[in-house]
This record gives sequence, structure tokens and C-alpha cells, in this order.
Amino acid sequence: MLDEKQKIIQKTPEPTLRRLPWYLAFLKIMKTKGTVVVSSTQIANAIGIDASQVAKDLSYVDIIGKTRVGYDVAELLDVLEAFLGFNTRHRAIIFGAGSLGKALILDSGLSKYGLEVVAGFDVRNELVGTAINGITIYHPSQCADLRGKLKAEIGILTVPADKAQEVTDVMMESGIKAIWNFTPFRVKVPENIVLQDTSLFSHLAVIFNSLNQNN
Amino acid sequence: MLDEKQKIIQKTPEPTLRRLPWYLAFLKIMKTKGTVVVSSTQIANAIGIDASQVAKDLSYVDIIGKTRVGYDVAELLDVLEAFLGFNTRHRAIIFGAGSLGKALILDSGLSKYGLEVVAGFDVRNELVGTAINGITIYHPSQCADLRGKLKAEIGILTVPADKAQEVTDVMMESGIKAIWNFTPFRVKVPENIVLQDTSLFSHLAVIFNSLNQNN
Repeated sequence: MLDEKQKIIQKTPEPTLRRLPWYLAFLKIMKTKGTVVVSSTQIANAIGIDASQVAKDLSYVDIIGKTRVGYDVAELLDVLEAFLGFNTRHRAIIFGAGSLGKALILDSGLSKYGLEVVAGFDVRNELVGTAINGITIYHPSQCADLRGKLKAEIGILTVPADKAQEVTDVMMESGIKAIWNFTPFRVKVPENIVLQDTSLFSHLAVIFNSLNQNN
Repeated sequence: MLDEKQKIIQKTPEPTLRRLPWYLAFLKIMKTKGTVVVSSTQIANAIGIDASQVAKDLSYVDIIGKTRVGYDVAELLDVLEAFLGFNTRHRAIIFGAGSLGKALILDSGLSKYGLEVVAGFDVRNELVGTAINGITIYHPSQCADLRGKLKAEIGILTVPADKAQEVTDVMMESGIKAIWNFTPFRVKVPENIVLQDTSLFSHLAVIFNSLNQNN
């Protein structure tokens, strides 16, 4: 029972993990402005959510605010970045060097948040052997052989939807532990593999529909 | 009371809107394979969610399946695309032609789903007047004047987090009705403006944390 409880205490809920980067972004702005101390109420007001929620979210992070004073901005910033894994290098490969894949290779913002793209893969022969932003594009058949060299944990999926499952399987066979799926296809992975869907098309559908509702 | 009820019937829930593109992606694959008829159970099995959920989601769309037969694949595909607004042009501007903004301008996939980027904006003088993928980059001060020419409804936000609110305000003053926010900053908009957050950094935080849990 104790082990089970400890596990529950350690595991940060996904909604909390999604909110913490918002706090981080706000703290960076505060720091630039020269603010030294911030309260959870100030963070809450800036973000537009409940102060008790902010305090609860921050309770997962290893930092203690001073009663009636608040958190040290610089300290909270450092602790949050470390907690979220943004100042650790995470090696990733991208499958599908089409427009979105290429775009993500070119996006230097991701590297500032700890994502290091070390290789790209594409079936198109004219792309194999070329480099985008210094990142070499290989043929998918080379993936397993490159495993030891690339040492990537994360596989970013930007292939056409009808190839999504096949490519996911290839990546898992090559030692990939987390799939970041940008396709609208629902890939299947075993329980020990991390799966994160980021469907730009789903978000577009919500925007278009809401615009229609408002018009 | 009747009006209220009609309103409830018409409004598609956001989770449904997020799932419908998954069905669409699956149907496209089915059509390519030559499948003519599909049941909600088949869709459910492929996507990995409950068949009753699929049937309920599809009840918002104007199509009737044949009992014990299912849906006509080509028809459902067309109806879904139209329902989601993917075959209608939606004019958009992008604020911030940095790595992510540039990436989204280059991503031809979005245009296939009805998003037409008609202009970019950036404060950096060396970018103003240049074009990316045929899309001209303007200075933000030109935004209001270009309103009539650009006729954009959607504003894509890819500026640094500390400029997010300021730029959102500029876009709203220029007639933008929906903000697609890729920054980790929580921008504030009035109720009549659509706001969609797509935080790649929040998704990264979830991936990194889940990898840590698994290791």
C-alpha cells in the first residue's frame, strides 16, 4: 500500500504538466522585468486560472514558497525548467521530411526546450543523403543500423497518415521509447511506449467550427 | 426552451470535433484501399475507441448510415470534410516569422485542410518586404491598413511569449476573429474571439516526464 501511495505522490498529473510551461513562460517575462518575488496569486491572475490550482500544481515541483512573500522568481524558474526536463538534452529523430517534418527540423525553438533532433528519415531517394539545417536525412531502412550512433529516445512522426502505423513500428524496433505523433492517424503502441498526439488538424477543426458558430 | 434545445443540438462538442479528423484520416485510407462501406464498429476498432462513441460523434454530422450495412465511405468522407470546414478556404495571417512561424508558412499540409496563409508579419526590418513560400512578410504597423486587402479571419501567433498579448491585441484591432496561439503565454481575448492554444512545449513536457517515469 505504501509503495502504491508513493507512486501516486510522485506521478505528476498530465493537466499539471501542461500548465507548468505556462507558469514558466510568465516567470521568464517577470525575470526580464526585474521582478524578484512572485506569489501564486500573481501567477494565477496573469494566467487566468485559480490561485489554489497554481499552488497545487507547484506542490509537485520541489520548491517551497515563503509564507506571505511568495516564490523567488529566478529559483522557481530554474527549478521548473529542470523539473520539466527543458534543460536536459533529449535526442529525437524525425520520420517524414515533408513540409511539417522539415518545418520541425528548422524550428530552433524546440532545441531551447531540450529537444535535439539528431536525424531525419524519408523514403524519397532525392532527399536521402541531403541535410536540412545540418541534420542528415536517411532512408528508413537505415534506422535500425543507426540505433547505436543516434541514441535517440523520441521519434517524431510527420509521415502521411497511411504510413503512420508502419513507421511507428519501425521506430519502436529501433529502440524509440516515445512517439510524438503529428499525423491525424491513431497509431497503436504497447503500454511501455510513450505516445503524444499533436493534431494540428483537430485544432483547425475546432477553430473553423467555433468561427462558424460565432458568425 | 425550444430555441435553447435547438442550440444544444447544433453545437458540436469540442472532444467530438477533435475526434472527427481521426475518422477522416482512417476513411481516406479505406477509400484508397477500395473499401466501399464501413460500419461505426470498424471505425471504432481502427481508432481504438468505443463504437457507441463513434456513432454518437457521427450523429452530429449530416449523414445516415444504413442499418446492418454502415456508411458509404466516399459519402462519409465528403460530408466529414465539409462538416469540419476542411474544403472551405479560411484566410489566415501569421505573426512572427521566426523558426516556427516560417515553418508553418512552409507547411503545405495546412492548406490541404482549408487554412490559407495570406501574409506574415514580423518586427525585424531585414524580414519586412521579403517573401517566404510566396507569402509576403509585412511590418506589424501595416496590419490595420492591410485589413481590407488580406480579409483574414484567423491570426496565428508565433512570436516570443513576452510579445504574445500585445500582438493578439493588434490582430483583434485588425479584424481577426480567431487566434491560434503557439506560444506558451496565456493570452486573454474577449468572449466573441475564438482562442485555440497549441503548445508544443506543453506536449514536450508530458513526453519528457513520461519517459522519466518509464526509465
